[in-house]
Amino acid sequence: LTSRLPQVGTTIFTVMSALAAEVGAVNLGQGFPDFDCDPELVNAVTRAMQAGHNQYPPMPGVPALRQAMAAKMQSLYGLRCDPNTEITVTAGATQAILTAILAVVHPGDEVIVLEPCYDSYVPNIELAGGKVVRVPLVPGTFRPDFDAIAAAITPRTRALMINSPHNPSGQVWSAEDMQRLDELLAPTDVLLISDEVYEHMVYDGQQHLSAARFPGLAARAFIVSSFGKTYHVTGWKVGTVVAPAPLTAEFRKVHQFNVFTVNTPMQHALAAYMADPAPYLQLSDFYQRKRDLFREGLAQTRFRLLPGQGTYFQCVGIENLAVAERDLPEGEFCQWLTREIGVAAIPLSAFYGNGFDQKVVRFCFAKKDETLKAALDRLARL
Amino acid sequence: LTSRLPQVGTTIFTVMSALAAEVGAVNLGQGFPDFDCDPELVNAVTRAMQAGHNQYPPMPGVPALRQAMAAKMQSLYGLRCDPNTEITVTAGATQAILTAILAVVHPGDEVIVLEPCYDSYVPNIELAGGKVVRVPLVPGTFRPDFDAIAAAITPRTRALMINSPHNPSGQVWSAEDMQRLDELLAPTDVLLISDEVYEHMVYDGQQHLSAARFPGLAARAFIVSSFGKTYHVTGWKVGTVVAPAPLTAEFRKVHQFNVFTVNTPMQHALAAYMADPAPYLQLSDFYQRKRDLFREGLAQTRFRLLPGQGTYFQCVGIENLAVAERDLPEGEFCQWLTREIGVAAIPLSAFYGNGFDQKVVRFCFAKKDETLKAALDRLARL
Ligand SMILES: CSCCC(=O)C(=O)O
Ligand SMILES: CSCCC(=O)C(=O)O
Repeated sequence: LTSRLPQVGTTIFTVMSALAAEVGAVNLGQGFPDFDCDPELVNAVTRAMQAGHNQYPPMPGVPALRQAMAAKMQSLYGLRCDPNTEITVTAGATQAILTAILAVVHPGDEVIVLEPCYDSYVPNIELAGGKVVRVPLVPGTFRPDFDAIAAAITPRTRALMINSPHNPSGQVWSAEDMQRLDELLAPTDVLLISDEVYEHMVYDGQQHLSAARFPGLAARAFIVSSFGKTYHVTGWKVGTVVAPAPLTAEFRKVHQFNVFTVNTPMQHALAAYMADPAPYLQLSDFYQRKRDLFREGLAQTRFRLLPGQGTYFQCVGIENLAVAERDLPEGEFCQWLTREIGVAAIPLSAFYGNGFDQKVVRFCFAKKDETLKAALDRLARL
Repeated sequence: LTSRLPQVGTTIFTVMSALAAEVGAVNLGQGFPDFDCDPELVNAVTRAMQAGHNQYPPMPGVPALRQAMAAKMQSLYGLRCDPNTEITVTAGATQAILTAILAVVHPGDEVIVLEPCYDSYVPNIELAGGKVVRVPLVPGTFRPDFDAIAAAITPRTRALMINSPHNPSGQVWSAEDMQRLDELLAPTDVLLISDEVYEHMVYDGQQHLSAARFPGLAARAFIVSSFGKTYHVTGWKVGTVVAPAPLTAEFRKVHQFNVFTVNTPMQHALAAYMADPAPYLQLSDFYQRKRDLFREGLAQTRFRLLPGQGTYFQCVGIENLAVAERDLPEGEFCQWLTREIGVAAIPLSAFYGNGFDQKVVRFCFAKKDETLKAALDRLARL
């Protein structure tokens, strides 16, 4: 048996969560909250199941959920989109991204990723038979390097993948960044896959600048969102893709033969819950508190805080730690930190194809305050 | 934009369900029950959510569900399998099948399908860059033709896809069929994708002969099951794949970058519910009653009943109907039947790559008795 993905092992998030569980470490590795969702959302699922919403929904998703999403895209980002032809409900953002790639990337097509990037992007492109073109974000700041992106575009470029707020760095693209992207792509037919799963986690007075706000980008984009991230239900596996009708048509051809549809009761519950925008409008404030608490604690340690205005991740440099630790490769450092100090983190090298090691690791602060404090207590020992 | 799947439109099941809803027809097209699941299963989901099972489960699935599945494979089919390395929980059977194909089919590899077959198989193979090799089941009886299968195997054959009980025909492979398959594949390294989603719907004293019962087949097979079909929750989108460890390892590499994981509370609920085998052990009896009721009613109409001992589908020939109707292509006949007679059905041509038209359509009898009676009343008008 020859592997289709010979480079790939088990995703780092699974590996680190398993290790954290095994050794009883505080798990700040994999990105998920350790607190629960709003009980109202749970009740809404129960009501949907009791109302008999347990069979296949329409293939593109429950209409009420697509309508709620259309209303949100308009009120938040000024994008008018047709829920019948431009929105599809997915089994989470990961499925959305693979499906978009399978739908538009032909064997031999080039797809540009900006490294560091989420670990599914590259294998997704490879499964479609595409050629991965890696463009680094600016080292140290993780800002987009538009000259490098421009230089990477060729007549074979089918798509560019972007992600703001950015996992793992937490950087948020500015209005100027988005405008430059718009100008750069305007003369091309490069498609955009815009992973916006952290859209409601933006701090320090910044705003999320969705591709939906830029008509030139929206016209070529798959915009990927995640209810799991927004509503603290990462295990429900529901997301959406917003894309112009011709892109959505191709997306759905693949989607229907991938998962066909997405969990019906969860979709009904989310549709009802979306009627109130408060939960997502207040999410940045909710997480800013946790982020500030966590950053203040880290400032007392030997870790170097990296900048970042979004996501629920905080990156830190390890170069001021004791020699024995800071000289470990990032991956081994994270193993050591998990086993010996009792706090799990994710090495940034996991977000690079070549395992680039810059002595930076990522913590997730989507945790109860007491969890963050327990982790900080342990990290302060270093 | 050039389509990756130029031949593909919206899946026939979606098209016919939408039409049935539009014109108020009795929907015997798409395969799903119009009755509800056991309320105990709904309660189990609520309990799981209330217990806080709302974040990512382990990537391969909730351990308790994989253990319950391993126990079932052993008690029902005599297969010992390791839940840690040989069972993966999927977002339904469709996702399982695409993922298995993406995991093992390399561009240019041949994959044999036995036509008529479920409409996702061929696009799944095409998305992986594989070459589809179509072998017909014996016309009229839909039995496997082992000489034709043997003749289709080449050194480039990566996998064979089988499906018993068979959608759309309802035919069930016999012990002799499975033994012949085992002998045929023994000298090859052809993998088997065994779609067994109707395993618990077998009638007239027949039994389901899972690939799991044949060591030579189990050693090369992805065995695909569906909780949606078995527990009347097609909208929950939970299935499993059982495969030997090396195949499971490749499967999970793709799975983690497709959906990553599957709905957590549903998995916990299903794990608890599986403790009692009665629901699946009694399912064949439950559906046999509906099938007998439906067949008895159809025997009073001008439709010709085709044989079949499994699934929740009944195929009928239309050649004895009035000329105006029986001369329509199957697809148009189903449209006409839906609009004019008020009963939706699926044309068998949808299960063939070349649209082969044998004047046969498929009804789904997973419906309340009153629904079946209402449909029969309408069909009797013909
Ligand atoms: C899909 S598991 C990983 C969750 C996540 O988005 C992350 O940790 O980066
Ligand atoms: C996934 S929708 C179709 C359901 C089904 O299995 C069928 O009708 O054949």
